Amino acid sequence: MNLDAAKAALAHLDIEQSEAAIRAKSRDFFWYSPVLKDRLDHVEADFVVSPKSEAEVIEVLKACYEHDVPVTTRGAGTGNYGQAMPLAGGCVMHLRHMTAVKKIAPGRVICEPGILLKDLDAATKDHSGQEIRMFSSTWATATIGGFIAGGSGGVGSCTWGSLRDLGNIIRLRVVTMEAEPRILEFRGEELARVSHAYGTNGIITEIEIPLAPAYDWVEMFVTSKDFMAATRFAEGLANLDGVLIKLATVFEAPIAKAYFARVAPHVDEGDSLVGLMVAPHSMDGFLTFLGRHPDLTLIYRNDDHDWARGPGAVFEYGWNHTTLRALKVDPSITYLQVRYGFPQHLDLIEKMRDALSPEVLQHLEVLRENGKVMFAGLSLVNFTTEDRLDEIVKMHEDAGAMIFNPHRYTLEEGGRQAVDDRQLAFKREADPKGLLNPGKMIAWDDPDFGFETMYAYPKMQAAE
Amino acid sequence: MNLDAAKAALAHLDIEQSEAAIRAKSRDFFWYSPVLKDRLDHVEADFVVSPKSEAEVIEVLKACYEHDVPVTTRGAGTGNYGQAMPLAGGCVMHLRHMTAVKKIAPGRVICEPGILLKDLDAATKDHSGQEIRMFSSTWATATIGGFIAGGSGGVGSCTWGSLRDLGNIIRLRVVTMEAEPRILEFRGEELARVSHAYGTNGIITEIEIPLAPAYDWVEMFVTSKDFMAATRFAEGLANLDGVLIKLATVFEAPIAKAYFARVAPHVDEGDSLVGLMVAPHSMDGFLTFLGRHPDLTLIYRNDDHDWARGPGAVFEYGWNHTTLRALKVDPSITYLQVRYGFPQHLDLIEKMRDALSPEVLQHLEVLRENGKVMFAGLSLVNFTTEDRLDEIVKMHEDAGAMIFNPHRYTLEEGGRQAVDDRQLAFKREADPKGLLNPGKMIAWDDPDFGFETMYAYPKMQAAE
Repeated sequence: MNLDAAKAALAHLDIEQSEAAIRAKSRDFFWYSPVLKDRLDHVEADFVVSPKSEAEVIEVLKACYEHDVPVTTRGAGTGNYGQAMPLAGGCVMHLRHMTAVKKIAPGRVICEPGILLKDLDAATKDHSGQEIRMFSSTWATATIGGFIAGGSGGVGSCTWGSLRDLGNIIRLRVVTMEAEPRILEFRGEELARVSHAYGTNGIITEIEIPLAPAYDWVEMFVTSKDFMAATRFAEGLANLDGVLIKLATVFEAPIAKAYFARVAPHVDEGDSLVGLMVAPHSMDGFLTFLGRHPDLTLIYRNDDHDWARGPGAVFEYGWNHTTLRALKVDPSITYLQVRYGFPQHLDLIEKMRDALSPEVLQHLEVLRENGKVMFAGLSLVNFTTEDRLDEIVKMHEDAGAMIFNPHRYTLEEGGRQAVDDRQLAFKREADPKGLLNPGKMIAWDDPDFGFETMYAYPKMQAAE
Repeated sequence: MNLDAAKAALAHLDIEQSEAAIRAKSRDFFWYSPVLKDRLDHVEADFVVSPKSEAEVIEVLKACYEHDVPVTTRGAGTGNYGQAMPLAGGCVMHLRHMTAVKKIAPGRVICEPGILLKDLDAATKDHSGQEIRMFSSTWATATIGGFIAGGSGGVGSCTWGSLRDLGNIIRLRVVTMEAEPRILEFRGEELARVSHAYGTNGIITEIEIPLAPAYDWVEMFVTSKDFMAATRFAEGLANLDGVLIKLATVFEAPIAKAYFARVAPHVDEGDSLVGLMVAPHSMDGFLTFLGRHPDLTLIYRNDDHDWARGPGAVFEYGWNHTTLRALKVDPSITYLQVRYGFPQHLDLIEKMRDALSPEVLQHLEVLRENGKVMFAGLSLVNFTTEDRLDEIVKMHEDAGAMIFNPHRYTLEEGGRQAVDDRQLAFKREADPKGLLNPGKMIAWDDPDFGFETMYAYPKMQAAE
């Protein structure tokens, strides 16, 4: 790795000079996990470059290829799996300047990867009353490129499914890491090569995704003394084909009382909470359905309430914001990502809760998968030891609830613990020197890895 | 019944004078059914009045109440269950003049009942790129009021479910049949009183329904040599959460070859056909999915084809237009409406087909019910005798496939063969003399009716 030569070659670009800025831009939200915090806290890039165009991205990749400098690409760095942590140092390429919205048409938008989700929504809403189908709870701070390269779904997935599902990404334009970087356009089956690949095998420079109509979503909180009743309510609501929703989140008691400061005055310890976003023209249907559940109580709606201090956006209580809010109150909290698949979802949830509450508190997100309503769990875990955390993971897996382990920094361990042949094959083609986000794809480093223990990237930059 | 007095009282309104026009406006599409044709062919109103406003509707109801004249309300008369047939004669009230679109907002429209579905769609599309969520295949000729009062769902129900599902109707304004007609506004649970009640217990004068974004739907035909493969393909497509569709229809071979004249040159006897409407921004996802099914062949898309004569709108092959097209070729054809409910739907379809094809040919419509993809069957039946038709109905029911019998003119027999207490209770309140669409609600006429045989309305106008 010839850092000086690479930096010299890129000196005319926007390169970060200060040590503090380099450190700040070398970090994502890996510290949600005590396990990753322990492993990655010292990780730092050698320099940070922020290209302004695809041509500059190509310059960066070409120079770093020539001088054998690793390149870890990032957006806002709001991922929790250490997606954007530059394990081998080298160059962090920050895409914050690439924010152009290139085209908006009925049902679709073409944009650059560095635009914030909220800015993209503002542009499409302003243009034609449209919005993106789904976004992470970090909507206000995260980028669309980071969401696609490092995320799986979020607010909106209760209706539209996950990012990886057919139709939720239309086209990605990708630059390879070679002596002469190529520009490729991926559609259809090819999209799986690079979406949710953490930038390990190509850099996304343009994105085409579908849009949905933008509505003034009515955001609400509903409480129940009975967690499973709250869960069944959320599921039942999501199954109403004529009622359009964007979010249905269930929080086991006492999450709301303990961790949601602005909600706490309005709930008891024993209240489980449901957070919702419902289209305004579906409110009659929603309220009719709610009326059939006298055990549930509407305590807040953003368009009509008397709370002295409003709670802010309801979606900023859901998905990974739940963990963030809990962490701020109790630093010993961490979390797990669980898949409670249809049709066993309710049984699995009840079983895990019976076995583990309150050490593990249920936080559920309604998710559609293959046309069925099921749940993603982002359970809050009272962290004690890594061994106990592994034990809890194993209990879920033994019961049939798949875990996407957020205490691992590799694609495989944070995913389905299997090699993705399409991603690996494309990395061989597009990143022959293995310089893109090193250490994140086990299959590249260690094809025989057995997944019995946590993968430790051997070339990880030494702790200082 | 004092007809002359009623006619005199309404003489200042638009009253039909000619005998031919009265006969024409006394008939709907009941003749799809040989059973109904036999029973209802002679039915005719005594006069037809077409009010121009809610105030005139009230005048009609008031005068007919005073003079004990039955009132059967109709839109375009495209229903197949004899919904709009004036069994006891009297007045047919035609709402064709009440076509105002009163308000269009994001996600909703308020209109009068007599507007054609196509005109309503044109108005909402022109205003803000929106369209109604679902429509009958008679979109070009049917009214929104007739669809709500006499229909159950249609094109769009593969995504949005049925009209009766929560959220698919927001509000109905209804006038009662009393000495002093009242105007009522129904929302939520109250909607079930009058939607799909054939105008037996109140007259709808204003409708508020949700809208969806209007897209330039790509209309397609796909063929398969294997009917069940075609059916599984349609189901799988509808289960793709990220691919937006408006129609997925399956036609067993040789329906396409035998009855679809403009499609016939492009298919073989052995081809089962799938008719589709897919959002343009979902075409990449759709084609990717299609690519995973090498046994299915795309033979037509409306935006790119070389057919010398285009087939016209693909949705005009589905829902009740299938039967219409078959009838035109072979007058001995009739049909059944079947519910193949999740999760037994595929097994039931295969079982019915094994038992009855080709006497009964499968025509399936993808439908969402309680969040699940299932199928409505509008099977084509080679009619021989009423006894055999009843036997076929019984075979379906015995297997667990519910029948909505289109060879019956009552709400109960054409529905779930059970009294709808909400509709009956409201009829007692809103139509105390029983003058609204008489003979259509068995519960009103004969509360002890046992459903063993076909109901025969005792006051049916004598055949002439």
